[in-house]
Amino acid sequence: MYNMDKLFEAVAARGPVCVGLDTAADYVPPGERQRASSDAAAILAFNKAIIDATIDAAACFKVQIACYEELGLAGLETYARTLKYLREKKGLVIADIKRGDIADTALRYAKSHFEGDFEADFVTLSPYMGMYSIEPWFSYAQSRGKGAFVLMRTSNRGMRDFEYLELKTDPPAENAAGAGVPGGSVPPRRLYHAVGDKLAELAGTRRGVYGYGAFGAVLGCTEREEAAAIRGRYSGLFFLIPGYGAQGGAADDAALLLRKGNGGVVNASRSILKAWTAAPGAENEGAAADNPAGRDGVNNAFAAEAARGAALEMRDAIRKAVKNRDREEEP
Amino acid sequence: MYNMDKLFEAVAARGPVCVGLDTAADYVPPGERQRASSDAAAILAFNKAIIDATIDAAACFKVQIACYEELGLAGLETYARTLKYLREKKGLVIADIKRGDIADTALRYAKSHFEGDFEADFVTLSPYMGMYSIEPWFSYAQSRGKGAFVLMRTSNRGMRDFEYLELKTDPPAENAAGAGVPGGSVPPRRLYHAVGDKLAELAGTRRGVYGYGAFGAVLGCTEREEAAAIRGRYSGLFFLIPGYGAQGGAADDAALLLRKGNGGVVNASRSILKAWTAAPGAENEGAAADNPAGRDGVNNAFAAEAARGAALEMRDAIRKAVKNRDREEEP
Repeated sequence: MYNMDKLFEAVAARGPVCVGLDTAADYVPPGERQRASSDAAAILAFNKAIIDATIDAAACFKVQIACYEELGLAGLETYARTLKYLREKKGLVIADIKRGDIADTALRYAKSHFEGDFEADFVTLSPYMGMYSIEPWFSYAQSRGKGAFVLMRTSNRGMRDFEYLELKTDPPAENAAGAGVPGGSVPPRRLYHAVGDKLAELAGTRRGVYGYGAFGAVLGCTEREEAAAIRGRYSGLFFLIPGYGAQGGAADDAALLLRKGNGGVVNASRSILKAWTAAPGAENEGAAADNPAGRDGVNNAFAAEAARGAALEMRDAIRKAVKNRDREEEP
Repeated sequence: MYNMDKLFEAVAARGPVCVGLDTAADYVPPGERQRASSDAAAILAFNKAIIDATIDAAACFKVQIACYEELGLAGLETYARTLKYLREKKGLVIADIKRGDIADTALRYAKSHFEGDFEADFVTLSPYMGMYSIEPWFSYAQSRGKGAFVLMRTSNRGMRDFEYLELKTDPPAENAAGAGVPGGSVPPRRLYHAVGDKLAELAGTRRGVYGYGAFGAVLGCTEREEAAAIRGRYSGLFFLIPGYGAQGGAADDAALLLRKGNGGVVNASRSILKAWTAAPGAENEGAAADNPAGRDGVNNAFAAEAARGAALEMRDAIRKAVKNRDREEEP
């Protein structure tokens, strides 16, 4: 069984939320941060509290390694210990590392992130250097069930620079973008389609029990007008969907990239980790006895409870959007 | 003064060789590896010997982080200590990390690799997510003189998958690839040209004293037929040139990507680090008293001496190729 199958089951059981542990030190409640021996220690304790509070409200977690690397060796130790804690709790985890290098090096990276101190269930990868830079990782799909999400069309401002570039298509582009667009003119074929096509081909070689390939794609939920065509065209790719919340994507946008509420996980980081800053009581942190955070001010338990609330709210919003969409689609 | 200016001066003084410290544990002479307390420790000692022996024969060093990450936290400590040793020795170093992420995350990564435990003079970056993913790094060019090489056209087998894709060009492509190709038909405009054009634009905003931008590009030396056109078109970009030796590139190919022997550094890793395996004496390792490696077998000093020889030989081969080329170009 591939990890992608486990992820499908997790979404079916607990909804499509992916909790992004992109934990910057200033996401930790100030009192907790102050009491901790270091920022790295503060982040680890915060992560554990968030994991405990959200594990039954989310399909999986995503850990952005940059937030840990920023703190140097101590930060990477916190990264490793966060992954270890997730393994102990049987939480599925995506290591957001966006690696992409020549085959020899890719194999070393795969060993780094699919085994040992930094072992994760999934990674994110960058496709620029081509499929030979992806394949060494793919060998771990067979041997250990590991999965990956390869950058396809992201949700950031820069995506139009290259991902959107229009490719030359020689003869009438029958197989090009937007198969399934009825009647009209042939839509442009972009770089991200070329990446998606290669990924679909790769995914087809190791398809799991629910029809999705062992490797999927990163697909931002910020470009609503293309979402349905993409979901239709890449039916065998499981999506990691960033861009929700802070980056402008909404439940409706995310729902368009899902299929019957599955086939993807929707990541949110800040809106979950920092939910405590908007929770009742946080604004008077530590000031009064009726402060829900208690006399100690906003602590990790308070932040974790707020995170849980935000994750559940997000899950319900996406479920509702999926339902509305399914209703629209039935004629 | 930008680090790219320092690199130009280093090439002028010591030639264009970049020693790739892509040190796998099995590059270390077996006796040394056995005696070391761990593979991570063995690699650190080996690196120091190589650095000492090649620092005056090379322009700079490149450290491939995957080789260290593979050993987990202990490996990354060796990575940090290798960088520290290079700083102490005033060696210029490129951290080969190929990062590429959204702007917020890019800024965290930049902090990780331009400050603190992992501080380097240059990094390598991946452009897939667009220029907003590069710009946060670029802010360090101004504040600290830092440099970067962005993947443009690499030397690996997979490069044709995406880097070579032909882009749609609307009107007659006056500004497209191959400006300077006299008369003939317009050559195709590929993804790597789009990346190069954006990089040239960026580099133009912070040009150093020798005419090269603070940020340059990764340009493999394996596609001879395009090299001269690329060098001509991207005159403001300093190149990091991989692919020499083990990947099939030769001195002639590398020379085509240089301009009067400067404007780029040519990386070699295995052919330098493993030169000891082909050096006289290594085949009878430790067997006889006349073994140049001494009674202890091939040690780090022996390997370092072989590395120095290989670096000098490579430097001379490239210098000769540059001379031949300059002669050809004078009518």
